[in-house]
Amino acid sequence: MASARSTRAFALPAEVGVDAILITNGTNRRYLTDFTGDDHAIDEPGGIAVLGTEGIWLFAPSTNLPWAQAEANADTTVVDWGTDWTLAVSNLVNEQGWRSLGFEDSTTTVAAYNKLTGHLSEDVTLMAVGNIVDTLRACKTSDEIELLKTALHMTDVAFEAAAARAKAGMTEKELADIVAEELKNAGSEGESFPTIVASGPNAAKPHHAPGDRVLQEGEPVIIDMGALHKGYAGDLTRTIWFGEPSPELVTMYRNVQAAFNAAIGAGKPGMTGVEFDAIARDVFREQGTDQYFVHSLGHGLGLRVHEAPSASPRSRDTLTAGMVVTVEPGLYVPGEGGVRIEDVVLITEDGVMNLTNAPKNVL
Amino acid sequence: MASARSTRAFALPAEVGVDAILITNGTNRRYLTDFTGDDHAIDEPGGIAVLGTEGIWLFAPSTNLPWAQAEANADTTVVDWGTDWTLAVSNLVNEQGWRSLGFEDSTTTVAAYNKLTGHLSEDVTLMAVGNIVDTLRACKTSDEIELLKTALHMTDVAFEAAAARAKAGMTEKELADIVAEELKNAGSEGESFPTIVASGPNAAKPHHAPGDRVLQEGEPVIIDMGALHKGYAGDLTRTIWFGEPSPELVTMYRNVQAAFNAAIGAGKPGMTGVEFDAIARDVFREQGTDQYFVHSLGHGLGLRVHEAPSASPRSRDTLTAGMVVTVEPGLYVPGEGGVRIEDVVLITEDGVMNLTNAPKNVL
Repeated sequence: MASARSTRAFALPAEVGVDAILITNGTNRRYLTDFTGDDHAIDEPGGIAVLGTEGIWLFAPSTNLPWAQAEANADTTVVDWGTDWTLAVSNLVNEQGWRSLGFEDSTTTVAAYNKLTGHLSEDVTLMAVGNIVDTLRACKTSDEIELLKTALHMTDVAFEAAAARAKAGMTEKELADIVAEELKNAGSEGESFPTIVASGPNAAKPHHAPGDRVLQEGEPVIIDMGALHKGYAGDLTRTIWFGEPSPELVTMYRNVQAAFNAAIGAGKPGMTGVEFDAIARDVFREQGTDQYFVHSLGHGLGLRVHEAPSASPRSRDTLTAGMVVTVEPGLYVPGEGGVRIEDVVLITEDGVMNLTNAPKNVL
Repeated sequence: MASARSTRAFALPAEVGVDAILITNGTNRRYLTDFTGDDHAIDEPGGIAVLGTEGIWLFAPSTNLPWAQAEANADTTVVDWGTDWTLAVSNLVNEQGWRSLGFEDSTTTVAAYNKLTGHLSEDVTLMAVGNIVDTLRACKTSDEIELLKTALHMTDVAFEAAAARAKAGMTEKELADIVAEELKNAGSEGESFPTIVASGPNAAKPHHAPGDRVLQEGEPVIIDMGALHKGYAGDLTRTIWFGEPSPELVTMYRNVQAAFNAAIGAGKPGMTGVEFDAIARDVFREQGTDQYFVHSLGHGLGLRVHEAPSASPRSRDTLTAGMVVTVEPGLYVPGEGGVRIEDVVLITEDGVMNLTNAPKNVL
């Protein structure tokens, strides 16, 4: 772990008034310990961490133990979690003499909470600390920004190569396979999320699993994809077409393009996520198309594809220098089609820097 | 959804004495609704389901709504979850006049539970129902068994093709890439989990991320891999080597082979997961190697790679006809290496049927 990260992390327990914080969020676990093992599922974590004020404990199941020991950073002590991690954590609390333990309530299950309560002595207070580690992760260190730039560059290169091979007559799934191949050719560890290729009426679905539909001339083909570099996620959306775009597509594309152009350079430190989102949403409102903009303008990007901050009407975040955020307005007309354009920006001291360089259609 | 599945599912609320059950487990959601959208993370579900006695409700975020509508089965009503799914669920509870709602405590977060409690009227009882839907999933319908057979066949074919291309001098990562390629060639949707290629001393780690280590002659190379077919997971482990195996490897391999051979045909309905595991564990104990068998004998396999039943010293499950279980004894000697052999069996009316046909070394 970079020292910039550990210094910030070790201050957190005191900030919220607890002796230590139980880390059940798998991404936060990786961020703090450098152990790359994923959770199989919410009820099957790859490890559990505890963040103290001077060190981190990483509890791992026997299957992951040697792997965790090989990867964990110098701040982290790796411990076998034995038969039940809640018991192992309560033992640590006793050994350390802690009287209060924070926990991440949005990733701790009711079953784990109840087990933990059963093990801890009655004078230990469990306190929900919300998403404070996620909030810490929202502002990237310079090391993290370099990793993200690499992931985004790989994404750009793979998109350009895949788009050059795309043609009418292939299926969505065939094009998604080409994207996977080009991501690998670009040096990516894999896909940061399952690639979306949504064509024609399927483009009206913001999320869509590529299927056997054959790509046709004139219709929108939305490609949403991302490389993965040392765990850091790329994210890019382009809407392409073959031959002449249909009149409906031209109108839709120009509308999204206008919202995108309004938003892409507008972010700056101090602006709220609500305000940033509103820049695109207001453009759609003036067009009378805002009922088709069914999602948020953007989201943070890092070790997770969707993370803080959120740029949406319900966001509680404020943009801060060092945050990395997607800008991805879209319109989705049921039965007809859709368009989405997405770049990724870094919030700087006085504005934004666009980290995406993939070519896009201009109409 | 196959009618066999819905009939069994609709009986569950009455079995545990509630009007309906909140489904926060993503795999159970897919099982009940046929919607394939995954959870991004525990605090970012792809949807939330509610299982009634005659129908299922699927709440989806706006980004997934058209996708969910396109895939959901006839038993399922798809609903926009609006700004907060806990509010949407509590509205449904009110509309239906339910007085009790079961919930899956091992996949419901404390934050979601607290929000839900805040929305529900005071006379509605929330009741933890544990893993009853997982338990339902443990016994496969005949449709599911066919899907699993296909996934396992693809896994066999891909392993054989990858093993033929493997050679000393390539890195773990290069071999893992070959596995990915051959899985695709075999018709797989992807990997049911990140492929493990663990060589030499890395083979002492049951789970390991393939890296730049170069495969050497004589040492163990563990390959653990699985195809994915319509969401159903394959799972297969083989330990291979190039040239002459080292004496340590020969001994270790023979020891694991003995435990494997003892266990593979021994499962039968009525046997507990503890008893099944003990068959292999006892062989290791007699060899004096049991301290190196650091995980369970096996686990259920279906829409999830690890699911009920468990075959382990701590299992509470009993083998029943229709269950599909891995048999995967292994030994892991720190600093030296390891061996694991894994097939998958179907528990039948009077024993097991081995569903794996990939070749394995015999020593």
